[in-house]
Amino acid sequence: MERDTESLRSRYVQVRTFSEQLCEPLETEDYVVQSMPDASPAKWHLAHTTWFFDQFILQELCGREPYSEPFNFLFNSYYNAAGDQYTRARRGMITRPTVEQVYDYRNAIDDELQNVIAKGDLSEEFVLRLEVGLNHEQQHQELLLTDLKHLMWQNPLRPAPYPQEHEPFAAERKQEPREMRRHAFDGGVYEIGYGGDGFSYDNESPRHEVLLQPFELARRPVTCGEYLQFIEDGGYERPDHWLSDGWATVQEQGWDGPLYWEKRDGQWHHYTLNGMRPVQPNEPVSHVSYYEADAFADWAGARLPSEQEWEVATQGQFIEGNFVESGNFHPRAVETDPEGFTQMFGDVWEWTRSSYGPYPGFEPFEGALGEYNGKFMCGQYVLRGGSCATSKTHIRETYRNFFYPHSRWQFSGIRLAW
Amino acid sequence: MERDTESLRSRYVQVRTFSEQLCEPLETEDYVVQSMPDASPAKWHLAHTTWFFDQFILQELCGREPYSEPFNFLFNSYYNAAGDQYTRARRGMITRPTVEQVYDYRNAIDDELQNVIAKGDLSEEFVLRLEVGLNHEQQHQELLLTDLKHLMWQNPLRPAPYPQEHEPFAAERKQEPREMRRHAFDGGVYEIGYGGDGFSYDNESPRHEVLLQPFELARRPVTCGEYLQFIEDGGYERPDHWLSDGWATVQEQGWDGPLYWEKRDGQWHHYTLNGMRPVQPNEPVSHVSYYEADAFADWAGARLPSEQEWEVATQGQFIEGNFVESGNFHPRAVETDPEGFTQMFGDVWEWTRSSYGPYPGFEPFEGALGEYNGKFMCGQYVLRGGSCATSKTHIRETYRNFFYPHSRWQFSGIRLAW
Amino acid sequence: MERDTESLRSRYVQVRTFSEQLCEPLETEDYVVQSMPDASPAKWHLAHTTWFFDQFILQELCGREPYSEPFNFLFNSYYNAAGDQYTRARRGMITRPTVEQVYDYRNAIDDELQNVIAKGDLSEEFVLRLEVGLNHEQQHQELLLTDLKHLMWQNPLRPAPYPQEHEPFAAERKQEPREMRRHAFDGGVYEIGYGGDGFSYDNESPRHEVLLQPFELARRPVTCGEYLQFIEDGGYERPDHWLSDGWATVQEQGWDGPLYWEKRDGQWHHYTLNGMRPVQPNEPVSHVSYYEADAFADWAGARLPSEQEWEVATQGQFIEGNFVESGNFHPRAVETDPEGFTQMFGDVWEWTRSSYGPYPGFEPFEGALGEYNGKFMCGQYVLRGGSCATSKTHIRETYRNFFYPHSRWQFSGIRLAW
Amino acid sequence: MERDTESLRSRYVQVRTFSEQLCEPLETEDYVVQSMPDASPAKWHLAHTTWFFDQFILQELCGREPYSEPFNFLFNSYYNAAGDQYTRARRGMITRPTVEQVYDYRNAIDDELQNVIAKGDLSEEFVLRLEVGLNHEQQHQELLLTDLKHLMWQNPLRPAPYPQEHEPFAAERKQEPREMRRHAFDGGVYEIGYGGDGFSYDNESPRHEVLLQPFELARRPVTCGEYLQFIEDGGYERPDHWLSDGWATVQEQGWDGPLYWEKRDGQWHHYTLNGMRPVQPNEPVSHVSYYEADAFADWAGARLPSEQEWEVATQGQFIEGNFVESGNFHPRAVETDPEGFTQMFGDVWEWTRSSYGPYPGFEPFEGALGEYNGKFMCGQYVLRGGSCATSKTHIRETYRNFFYPHSRWQFSGIRLAW
Ligand SMILES: [Fe+3]
Ligand SMILES: [Fe+3]
Ligand SMILES: [Fe+3]
Ligand SMILES: [Fe+3]
Repeated sequence: MERDTESLRSRYVQVRTFSEQLCEPLETEDYVVQSMPDASPAKWHLAHTTWFFDQFILQELCGREPYSEPFNFLFNSYYNAAGDQYTRARRGMITRPTVEQVYDYRNAIDDELQNVIAKGDLSEEFVLRLEVGLNHEQQHQELLLTDLKHLMWQNPLRPAPYPQEHEPFAAERKQEPREMRRHAFDGGVYEIGYGGDGFSYDNESPRHEVLLQPFELARRPVTCGEYLQFIEDGGYERPDHWLSDGWATVQEQGWDGPLYWEKRDGQWHHYTLNGMRPVQPNEPVSHVSYYEADAFADWAGARLPSEQEWEVATQGQFIEGNFVESGNFHPRAVETDPEGFTQMFGDVWEWTRSSYGPYPGFEPFEGALGEYNGKFMCGQYVLRGGSCATSKTHIRETYRNFFYPHSRWQFSGIRLAW
Repeated sequence: MERDTESLRSRYVQVRTFSEQLCEPLETEDYVVQSMPDASPAKWHLAHTTWFFDQFILQELCGREPYSEPFNFLFNSYYNAAGDQYTRARRGMITRPTVEQVYDYRNAIDDELQNVIAKGDLSEEFVLRLEVGLNHEQQHQELLLTDLKHLMWQNPLRPAPYPQEHEPFAAERKQEPREMRRHAFDGGVYEIGYGGDGFSYDNESPRHEVLLQPFELARRPVTCGEYLQFIEDGGYERPDHWLSDGWATVQEQGWDGPLYWEKRDGQWHHYTLNGMRPVQPNEPVSHVSYYEADAFADWAGARLPSEQEWEVATQGQFIEGNFVESGNFHPRAVETDPEGFTQMFGDVWEWTRSSYGPYPGFEPFEGALGEYNGKFMCGQYVLRGGSCATSKTHIRETYRNFFYPHSRWQFSGIRLAW
Repeated sequence: MERDTESLRSRYVQVRTFSEQLCEPLETEDYVVQSMPDASPAKWHLAHTTWFFDQFILQELCGREPYSEPFNFLFNSYYNAAGDQYTRARRGMITRPTVEQVYDYRNAIDDELQNVIAKGDLSEEFVLRLEVGLNHEQQHQELLLTDLKHLMWQNPLRPAPYPQEHEPFAAERKQEPREMRRHAFDGGVYEIGYGGDGFSYDNESPRHEVLLQPFELARRPVTCGEYLQFIEDGGYERPDHWLSDGWATVQEQGWDGPLYWEKRDGQWHHYTLNGMRPVQPNEPVSHVSYYEADAFADWAGARLPSEQEWEVATQGQFIEGNFVESGNFHPRAVETDPEGFTQMFGDVWEWTRSSYGPYPGFEPFEGALGEYNGKFMCGQYVLRGGSCATSKTHIRETYRNFFYPHSRWQFSGIRLAW
Repeated sequence: MERDTESLRSRYVQVRTFSEQLCEPLETEDYVVQSMPDASPAKWHLAHTTWFFDQFILQELCGREPYSEPFNFLFNSYYNAAGDQYTRARRGMITRPTVEQVYDYRNAIDDELQNVIAKGDLSEEFVLRLEVGLNHEQQHQELLLTDLKHLMWQNPLRPAPYPQEHEPFAAERKQEPREMRRHAFDGGVYEIGYGGDGFSYDNESPRHEVLLQPFELARRPVTCGEYLQFIEDGGYERPDHWLSDGWATVQEQGWDGPLYWEKRDGQWHHYTLNGMRPVQPNEPVSHVSYYEADAFADWAGARLPSEQEWEVATQGQFIEGNFVESGNFHPRAVETDPEGFTQMFGDVWEWTRSSYGPYPGFEPFEGALGEYNGKFMCGQYVLRGGSCATSKTHIRETYRNFFYPHSRWQFSGIRLAW
């Protein structure tokens, strides 16, 4: 694990600064409101990620006093071993501390932590927790964007927090998508899981063997054009292709398309972080639930890949794509001349058919950080590959994201398997 | 009705300015959040009261274009005849327009309306709607305070938006209350309802005769000390004195005292707009529901007065008391040497046993303003006399306020009758 | 109060037997199920009315042991002073005691009570409680019918528990209704409330003077034909005539007509205790809520009467009409040649605009029976006159029934006032 | 697949008769009520299993008219391809057809089907559907018992539908349990899934290879005595060992022990189909959710087995144990001298850590029967081995049962793995 003090410090600054850069276009009002229990206010993300360093490094490892006793309560998310927590669903009720006071908090903790780093002589535990803290902050950067998108969409004016997207991306999107081709894999024993010596989450380990049957995987994600065919074929009107829980959700929620899709004057539009615009056939479909991904795959005569299949397929690929660093905050069109697989990384998270559970021999992180991943291993499904809201420096081929099958507010899309 | 242009304009400026003065201590964050469906964000109050003049005078009477089409939708509360409305329970989701843009809206409408007033030659309808608009704004000033109190209390830090209260008020509160004395009234035919030529709401008319049985009314409100005896006598633990719906509410909500009361280290404290402090025996009890007021009265061997009794008792009294203008934002202690009735006006609204309904011959305001009061005449109970959050220039002996029997977030208290 | 032992006993037998006669066409299965929290299973009604005599006479006055300790718990409805109660909303979960065991309970208590009566030497309290118990049983006979109607209607087969109605009633219904005429009353001081020496409920007393303004009252109830015009004029599609709470209920519940109305092949039918049949223009509209009654009256340029007006209008009328004894279980058509008022009694309960509250000087029954009426005096509206499910021997001109403004499962209709 | 006509018919009669034998001690009232949306009335089970033969064999294969059009609607559970269905959560509202009419339905379909069988010349599809129908009926026999247990427990009298249990079972239960020993398995490639030529469900196929890591499995289930230690160690009071969703459920539902456990005078009792009785240390713990099973395992330093591990461990075992045929309807005590594994079959279903999903290459049954299993493959967890309410002729080592992680009303228990 990396130990060069200066590179540590500089990476710390880079990650921490990026959170604040993402918030630059926000008005103070945009920081405060919680649009649903699953989402959090931007202000809370900024404070909680700071508390993570405050609590798990400065207080626990360096023995510092808390910056503020109440912050320990307000900004602890779910670490029971680190104390009680304010109710998640009421995070939007907290107008004080103000946004400015939260930035003060960030500055104070940043100063203190950089001082500690600068002194050097850092324990392994310190470096591990710092890495966890930075990866944690990157996860919250993604949530900050998706939570913000959900919030701004509540507003009937559909305000766009970010400026128009890159022109080339928009142009590509109008082109015709190439046909969907497949790549075939042999069955057999493969190795998956993290086996390197960099940082990875506990849930990616241990590396282990799995036995796969022969399978095929699509070379590119499903497009909006393809998804529209499903809709126009009555996809949301008949239970035929749906899981039982999925169809019940469609009816309860009145779903008739992906989240953020609205029909205006007979044409489908969707809300993006750059504002409302027409759905283009060539862009990857996004903001679909597991239920919708599964129903689409069934309708298409295919299925979703398992996470093992997905990981095996991606082994050895470069991590390239449309990530948060592009500043586009929306999936890029499907590439027109794919060599091998395209867009496995970035653009949209890809639902797998794998329920999120422990790998054989799974060991959680030690201490309170053991609550980071392990206690969520029930009822959720694994997504792979990162999205246009994920940092390029955050994703790995072994990386496991997970959400409930009804969740749609992430940039979640579909890759077919057979 | 008042027609002197300059006094009209100056009253307009005074009322409109006061709304903004009340908001001075607020942080931007405090303006945005909605703590429950019954409450609204401060920002919304500021915008909605402005829309009221925009819609009902500038657009409807003066033929002006809307300041903003979406504002007509966002800031219409419940006037169906004036168009569709954004969902009440989601007012806190709207981060844009920003607070600053709302102040711009206020300034623009204020300029325009003052110009119109300055030109003179105002129709009766204009003057009536202006008066309604100003009284409407005063009602929202009270709601702004009570909604703000509810919001800040959500915060476990219990921040105090306003500075410490007047010292003399605090001192009085610690004194022993005088015994509760009664005044007896003969039965007979009395006149109630508004009969003057100033402004009044449609629901206060017409003036009409009522037949009352002999009754007695307490000279002062019920104190916290007296209410504590009810609590300590098991008031919240046994159904004996409660209405059936009241007891069901006590159990569902887990009530064990008035809203904002918390036991800390064995002593009752309550949250005020000046912060948390110990409950003092000599202050009028506040933030009780109709259910609690009725149960207390039953426990005390008394009952609540009807609104007719209350109005008859107050006829001819001066309108004096602890109103919003005092800047105290909390009820003043019960006076130590009452002559006749004390604190009928100001301090706390007093629940009556009268269900809110139309007077015989009731005629709503014309047009969309007919929805102001009439359509709420079901399921609510009348309160009388204004509170420490009401403007002194807003209250009348004929004034009828109304809330659901479970509501507690207003400064609502108790005066006994027999 | 009646003291002749044999007539007491015979009245007791008559009332008790009638409950069982009503149940004759029921299958065992029909006795058990609870269709909503407001309703109770027939089995429960039979047991609860028996418990009433068991508890309040045999146990409390005669010092008998309970027939069964658990029955005291299971069949107490809401008398806190008589002990704890099984949850109202779960009355349909209790399959044991069986229907047969409940009939055994009835027989045992009937035997014992008749023995006590036969011995004579009955205290005033005994006779009062017996009268309360018999009136109580009559109220539950009406609820048994309306609860049964609600239950059977849950079944998509819409089974009819009772045989076809009287042929003459059906024929009348198809005739054209007469125009709606009004009767005018002078304003002035009137007396209302029970002043006789027979039985009446505590809530009908004391007799007292009220001051009324001049008013007019319709000579007959509103018909289905008239109500259909309201529907066809968009009554359920626009908020114009509705109370605010009423319109909210229409939208939440998706109401588009009275309860039990269904459109089949373009024609309105309704479910009756004799089965489904087409809505006929000449029958009184029934199964409307207070909200609907109020909205209809507003649409018709009228209003609902107050309970005082209703009672004054009915003073001196004979109590005649279509009651439960007719065995028709459905309102009779509007009479074709009315002299004076028609159908004030029987057919449908008539909503008044009066919130249910205590008369001046109201004194509840003593002991646990004080909970009979008084604790419900909040949030409900008074209905007058009885219905086709009320016993002719149960109703009085001073009789006050009360339901929540959203309730529709009683035979509740409309009489207009101006 | 079995084709001998007489043995087919006799198996048909045996299974169908057993459903009715289970109902013998029921009162008519017990057949009708639905205690929660997950459960169904006994009457519905009897009718629905009959409809299964009526619809899928007599109507679809033999071209018969429906016995009753409405029954097709009322007693279809969830087969969209077979037509619309009455709302699951309202099955308890249907008092007609009566219990007797449902038995008539059973008799009529039984006669007709036996006639068809007797004629011989049965197609493969016929024999398959008959087998599915009989296995289906056996599943509903188990549900009938667990739903009945849940219903009778609603009753505060806790009536016991079945007579006292076998004396020897009760005696064993009081003995001291043996220590929990483990059996170790090598890692490697194993085969699982159904590979024989008898009947099995579609979800057990295809037989396929899996790669397992070395593991250990407990030789016996967890006892109530062991579970009590978990409770007494604060298991339900601290989040330490719980999945995040599990702990949320504990708090929302107020769980403090397994379903049907009640503390009376300081001692834990539980409700059984033979009535209330003290919890005995030596009986297998039952009626725990997946959440509780997982938390207990974590507390015990173990984990739950995967379904693959469970199946591998049981391969080659005889199917013996305490099944529904014993008539005991409650788990038998842990055996005192285990050789190898005990009680893998019968007594309690054993939760596995495996999310219920399709095996690689899974093919659903054809036609509407494809909805039997496949559409539930989301959000549920696999249980193995059958229970004291399962038929001995119904269970297999490859048999996969599945329930939501919060479900507790089945006889679901725990076997530990490491
Ligand atoms: Fe976090
Ligand atoms: Fe307003
Ligand atoms: Fe009753
Ligand atoms: Fe089934």
